[in-house]
Amino acid sequence: MIEPGATLALIRQNKPLVHQITNYVVMNETANATLALGALPVMAHAREEVQEMVALAGCLVLNIGTLSREWIEAMVLAGRAANDRKIPVVLDPVGAGATRYRSDTARRLLGEVEIAVLRGNPAEIASLVGVAAEIRGVESITAALDPAEIARAAGRKLGLVASVTGPVDYVSDGARLAAVSNGHPLLATVTGTGCISTAITGCFLAAKPADPFAAAVEALVAMGVAGEDAAVGAPGPGTFHVRLYDALAALDPATLDSRAKVEMK
Amino acid sequence: MIEPGATLALIRQNKPLVHQITNYVVMNETANATLALGALPVMAHAREEVQEMVALAGCLVLNIGTLSREWIEAMVLAGRAANDRKIPVVLDPVGAGATRYRSDTARRLLGEVEIAVLRGNPAEIASLVGVAAEIRGVESITAALDPAEIARAAGRKLGLVASVTGPVDYVSDGARLAAVSNGHPLLATVTGTGCISTAITGCFLAAKPADPFAAAVEALVAMGVAGEDAAVGAPGPGTFHVRLYDALAALDPATLDSRAKVEMK
Amino acid sequence: MIEPGATLALIRQNKPLVHQITNYVVMNETANATLALGALPVMAHAREEVQEMVALAGCLVLNIGTLSREWIEAMVLAGRAANDRKIPVVLDPVGAGATRYRSDTARRLLGEVEIAVLRGNPAEIASLVGVAAEIRGVESITAALDPAEIARAAGRKLGLVASVTGPVDYVSDGARLAAVSNGHPLLATVTGTGCISTAITGCFLAAKPADPFAAAVEALVAMGVAGEDAAVGAPGPGTFHVRLYDALAALDPATLDSRAKVEMK
Repeated sequence: MIEPGATLALIRQNKPLVHQITNYVVMNETANATLALGALPVMAHAREEVQEMVALAGCLVLNIGTLSREWIEAMVLAGRAANDRKIPVVLDPVGAGATRYRSDTARRLLGEVEIAVLRGNPAEIASLVGVAAEIRGVESITAALDPAEIARAAGRKLGLVASVTGPVDYVSDGARLAAVSNGHPLLATVTGTGCISTAITGCFLAAKPADPFAAAVEALVAMGVAGEDAAVGAPGPGTFHVRLYDALAALDPATLDSRAKVEMK
Repeated sequence: MIEPGATLALIRQNKPLVHQITNYVVMNETANATLALGALPVMAHAREEVQEMVALAGCLVLNIGTLSREWIEAMVLAGRAANDRKIPVVLDPVGAGATRYRSDTARRLLGEVEIAVLRGNPAEIASLVGVAAEIRGVESITAALDPAEIARAAGRKLGLVASVTGPVDYVSDGARLAAVSNGHPLLATVTGTGCISTAITGCFLAAKPADPFAAAVEALVAMGVAGEDAAVGAPGPGTFHVRLYDALAALDPATLDSRAKVEMK
Repeated sequence: MIEPGATLALIRQNKPLVHQITNYVVMNETANATLALGALPVMAHAREEVQEMVALAGCLVLNIGTLSREWIEAMVLAGRAANDRKIPVVLDPVGAGATRYRSDTARRLLGEVEIAVLRGNPAEIASLVGVAAEIRGVESITAALDPAEIARAAGRKLGLVASVTGPVDYVSDGARLAAVSNGHPLLATVTGTGCISTAITGCFLAAKPADPFAAAVEALVAMGVAGEDAAVGAPGPGTFHVRLYDALAALDPATLDSRAKVEMK
């Protein structure tokens, strides 16, 4: 059941630890978004400690935005340890399709770790299900792709919940398909808002591990509503970015459901 | 003598270089806080240069928030070089107690480097003096610990100044104990404010190397007063975070002493 | 021809990818500045992918702010690949002159990679052309240096465009010399504004690769004007920093030329 307000209330009550092995660009941002929402972030990437750290967590978030060999090994180790303990894992395949290294790494993680939710932009997700896509660096620029179809194909082929974000977000487990229309164009003007969506997905998944489809949808509702609130009167991307944390912290469980723009397709 | 205003004036006059080997999450934040206060930050972690860089500095700040092997080696090298030159060292044992790797690293640094000030939350510091503590990731969540006692025990057992921060901060060299009540609850809603406290401690220690107890207390007064100022009218953690840098830059040496809420226990 | 408005319009139209191998402290900041200006940032440093990534880019930005061995190798690989494809390269020699490791690395990059624009503060650039300079960490503190002469000497000796920033910026290719007086003192109160200038230089160079002298001047005009706008009413460095992204996004190609304070010497 899609009930973002109730799950948000649960996050704030239980304060789950969300272990994030993510990129250098957004570490501060995803940590602050996690904290603003009401969960607890921890960043730890050393092979010596990731298995022990993830055992304390309610969810593991993997993000390949700034890759290197040691970080990939740590992601695999942490992912397997999470799987062993039934801790759900979110993967953000930043830049998959842009370089062979990123595509190969995303595929390796999908192969060696059971991923509950795969969160990316249309080109990234498309590249992982064999759909040709144009990607420029880490930005998806292919307008021609149908993100709903990509989400459904990824859900079905990869056996997970695919969360494909854009002006309208699409979430699918291969069978069900939800469209989330919350959000604001200013979200696309700030680096790392995709990565923040992934981190927020991790928070919701930590609170609702048995239903990754609902958790993924609810997370995008929360992120989108926060974006809508942050955009009010914002003169530009800098101010919007700051207010996004204010808005995440101010999200009201009592009204969140009524603001959700979710359509089941 | 506790005189935060005079020491702040000295920092602004001399602009000491504060060499920080810290975690990926907060590098920008601690650099900006250092600069806003009036000192000069430098981040350098390569083993090839840390000894040369620290020789230029007035203080060395070590922070184990995102560990890995090469960074630990650099911290040891830099710490020993600082000791050789009588440059004071601050250690922030982020997450000590959460994983064995963090606890071992914190203990190794305490063993191989002479630390002037150890700045952490109650659970982190407690774990380093053998007091059982519950830590969730890098957040201390044990309400039962008495932070004043932890500070005193750490000061005594480790032979340094322990700076234990929380709603009320406690600083002790094992004999003396100061309680600092400046601050604001919003400080706990932003990632890295603890690390910023550590960096600010480094700035005060650079200006007052002969009296680490006073420097640690003064730093927490400055940080706390800046937090109080930043909180005025802040709608949430994002805006508060931004205003914290404004507030650090606006700290007035002439009024700082009168705003200090310090009690000697 | 110096026409910052026209080049800015071109950046916004073509959205060139600017590949940045930069330091941990400013990655989020330079990515956001790149995006706010209208280009697309990508951060990628793995040796396994930098050659493939740079081939997609309109410009490569190298910044040695937080060095280590693997990153240097990646910079060399990426730089040579950029040279092979006639993709222009900007180098920011952060801290050159402060440690031997930084000076040697900057010289190595200058030797092994053809650099189009070298952007730094007076002490950094002076150290690379054999002028004695005092540098404290990564901050230039030598008032005695003549930045115009340093720019001209670096342009001539190194065979590139030297972009030396300060209260007045000087850009020279060894023959021509331009002084840019746009900017605001608050720029010096925020960490990484120099690195942002370098990233913005990369954006302009991507749009105007055939004329690195003009691109470098135009970038400093854009950055300076944004700084002027961001400073209006800013109570301190935190708020100024946030508004800098607003201001970069709000830069108006139609009025930018008229606001340029450029003097050819």
